[in-house]
Amino acid sequence: MFESAELGHSIDDAAYRREVPALREALLQAQVELVRRAKFQVVILIAGMDGAGRGELVNVLNEWMDPRHIETWGMGDPSAGDDERPPTWRFWSVLPAKGKIGLFLGSWYTWPLLDRVWGRIKRGDLAERMQANARFEKMLVDEGVLVLKFWMHLSRRQQKARLESLSRNPRTRWRVTARDWDHHKRYEKLHKAAELTLTLTGTAEAPWMIVSGVDRNYRNLTIGRYILDAMRKRLSRKGPGRDVAPALPPPLPTIDNLHILKSLDLTRRTRKSAFKPALEKYQGRLSLLTRHAKFRDLSVVIVFEGNDAAGKGGAIRRVTAALDARFYQVIPVAAPSDEERARPYLWRFWRHIPDRGRIAMFDRSWYGRVLVERVERLCPPHDWMRAYGEINDFEAQLAAHGVVVVKFWLSIGKSEQLRRFREREATAFKRFKITDEDWRNRKKWNQYESAVCDMVERTSTGDAPWTLVESNDKNYARIKVLKTLCRRLEARF
Amino acid sequence: MFESAELGHSIDDAAYRREVPALREALLQAQVELVRRAKFQVVILIAGMDGAGRGELVNVLNEWMDPRHIETWGMGDPSAGDDERPPTWRFWSVLPAKGKIGLFLGSWYTWPLLDRVWGRIKRGDLAERMQANARFEKMLVDEGVLVLKFWMHLSRRQQKARLESLSRNPRTRWRVTARDWDHHKRYEKLHKAAELTLTLTGTAEAPWMIVSGVDRNYRNLTIGRYILDAMRKRLSRKGPGRDVAPALPPPLPTIDNLHILKSLDLTRRTRKSAFKPALEKYQGRLSLLTRHAKFRDLSVVIVFEGNDAAGKGGAIRRVTAALDARFYQVIPVAAPSDEERARPYLWRFWRHIPDRGRIAMFDRSWYGRVLVERVERLCPPHDWMRAYGEINDFEAQLAAHGVVVVKFWLSIGKSEQLRRFREREATAFKRFKITDEDWRNRKKWNQYESAVCDMVERTSTGDAPWTLVESNDKNYARIKVLKTLCRRLEARF
Repeated sequence: MFESAELGHSIDDAAYRREVPALREALLQAQVELVRRAKFQVVILIAGMDGAGRGELVNVLNEWMDPRHIETWGMGDPSAGDDERPPTWRFWSVLPAKGKIGLFLGSWYTWPLLDRVWGRIKRGDLAERMQANARFEKMLVDEGVLVLKFWMHLSRRQQKARLESLSRNPRTRWRVTARDWDHHKRYEKLHKAAELTLTLTGTAEAPWMIVSGVDRNYRNLTIGRYILDAMRKRLSRKGPGRDVAPALPPPLPTIDNLHILKSLDLTRRTRKSAFKPALEKYQGRLSLLTRHAKFRDLSVVIVFEGNDAAGKGGAIRRVTAALDARFYQVIPVAAPSDEERARPYLWRFWRHIPDRGRIAMFDRSWYGRVLVERVERLCPPHDWMRAYGEINDFEAQLAAHGVVVVKFWLSIGKSEQLRRFREREATAFKRFKITDEDWRNRKKWNQYESAVCDMVERTSTGDAPWTLVESNDKNYARIKVLKTLCRRLEARF
Repeated sequence: MFESAELGHSIDDAAYRREVPALREALLQAQVELVRRAKFQVVILIAGMDGAGRGELVNVLNEWMDPRHIETWGMGDPSAGDDERPPTWRFWSVLPAKGKIGLFLGSWYTWPLLDRVWGRIKRGDLAERMQANARFEKMLVDEGVLVLKFWMHLSRRQQKARLESLSRNPRTRWRVTARDWDHHKRYEKLHKAAELTLTLTGTAEAPWMIVSGVDRNYRNLTIGRYILDAMRKRLSRKGPGRDVAPALPPPLPTIDNLHILKSLDLTRRTRKSAFKPALEKYQGRLSLLTRHAKFRDLSVVIVFEGNDAAGKGGAIRRVTAALDARFYQVIPVAAPSDEERARPYLWRFWRHIPDRGRIAMFDRSWYGRVLVERVERLCPPHDWMRAYGEINDFEAQLAAHGVVVVKFWLSIGKSEQLRRFREREATAFKRFKITDEDWRNRKKWNQYESAVCDMVERTSTGDAPWTLVESNDKNYARIKVLKTLCRRLEARF
């Protein structure tokens, strides 16, 4: 795998000086187009061996192109705040917007590799984490991101020579740290881990480029040219600026028309006399649970989805009434901002993932992708078909980090919805809750029903199950929501 | 001050039920206008005594209005990540956008008050922090934010009765925490601290409303009506939707035309033979300083401003070459995003304030307000005149939190600029650096010079001094930048 990179490629200074001006100009032109059209972003990962010139490459690329549109991320050890959320969070938080180039020195590869080199994880764990990386990058690519990955290589001998030469010169001695020598001692381990990593994550959509790190001229030119070529090819594309792969036909409704929503008993109700004591009982339980010492170590993400007028807002308020306002946040999901539109669709949800000891309640959520966006044809079938897997990956990451993920579908019948729509229209201060869109959506009742069934079937997982809430009776629904939350938290304590 | 609030106001249930529907409808209408026009945001602070119904008020307001456009922030004790940056940072980070309402339960008042109640600070410290709050709110108001502040009051006796009544009922017992009783024991201290606070921060532009917290109906109606009235008055305004106070005339250029930029010796240079060793010497020193154990506890904010073509980018790259990419970030300041435009101008800089152990380099900065925005008349004189004080407050907060603030003005002569502009036009890969705007700015050379002099005079403070860098010779400038950074860090260690 690294044979060619160890050959000792080199370019003499005269040739380098001849080549660079044209390359610089072409790179700049490509970047100007990238910025102007802002159709996609470029994520460049610079990985490799210590001493292979990664830091220098960052400076060269910033010099060759317009650095105002390049974001360089070093990504050191997680800082205090980073540890509060799943590891991917900090990469999401700095994902560049369309039109920008993100240079990542240190990336989602760094910690799995170091964990393996220092023996903190087994080979199988490394493989699992690398598969997750490959899926993450697949999602980025599907979302239109141009992902370029460089592995800057040195053989063991080359690395030793490089570190020694830097150390000999008093002017460059400061560049060599104890960490570099520590890593050198573990060269073989890193070499093996890197081979597995590059094998598992060198995909067609985001291949690795292995580049010899020995000769500065060679590596700068090689990488510069590759970046230029990839940007140019991508810029020359017409249309949405990204590949939309053909998808198999979306799932068909079940032929006997029996489905999970039909199986709900919407006549369930909680009598008014039973409601108040039940409400206070479960609010009290929830309150105590969230004030429990163990609660400081976990966070909770609650998704509220449901038919229009199913009572999401009312259910949320019965939950918040039991909580200390310092520890929760309600996130209403409406039209994305321009910063959100410029990034993969999950970005706007990642930015609201709570830190430990906190609760985030999403009033509508990432499931919009497989509900409204599917039914209203706002994205092609391939995009919402892949979303099921992407969402499962997302929620699995939350769960793996100790986040309790609770998802409610508030379900009402078609005639109950009509009654509520009419009531809303008749009450002055409820009128804002009903729009033409609600009436339009209602006409597509069956299509939404299919979409909900597919969603539940494909995204109800052990870590993040859906709770279907019979909501024709608001009191019943509110108690079921509170009770479910209490039980999920009790199960965790 | 609290006499009226202790009188025991109350509204009976029948009257309450009669009043609420009309109020709800009117509030909703006002909110719909607020959202539609998105000219300003509303910040509502809900402070007061424990047991005065602050949490319930939040739920009521969310029920009366459209909660999708209300952001409720509890603001508990700072979490791990919050402590990395100045205390105001977390309020900045959640400041609502124009068109939104932010409900703050816990605010910039909470910690100073609690610190005083628990005897951690003296009365004078409380006064100082409250004056800072008043200045902060003045800035928000000047930026167009509608700031509404409610102090929900209970007398000592009323508080005791309330806590006891909640505790007696098994269904509401969970609402009373040990913290509430602890605070009750210190009622007198809080009462005194609150009086000082309300006195010092009850300004004409952001007055306090003191509301009796005893009777639920009374407090909900009182606060609801006040919010409605304030929103309506503000919505009825024409024009920019905010007050632009008249300002005294901006400073005139010095009459003898002698100023600080003229006093710079732009002929200073570093010979090529001396440059390389000096570069490596200071890069080495800087590298060691930033890898020092003490560096983990501080963060650095570096501002690069200067004439067009003065060499900011080149100077920045000579600094980054010495740094570990994991610990720095370069923030180029260009056109704001829509999320940024929807908030006070300092917001977009606060969001990039680094956590401990990190360096943020701003390629242009908040000083744009008093440079380009002043000279190009992008904002009225009153706005850039107040910016000097706001910027000093901002930087003082950084310094107080241990952030090293280093500010460079890279200065070149008018003829040197012309030479560089022409050189840029003649070199293919430098052409992107020169635009029509640069030529236009150049025509206003004298106006920019005045603006720079005023800026240096008004914002060079002991904690955040300006360093003027003679930059006709790039080598000299780069060494001076590196040397200054080293010295500032050494002074701190």
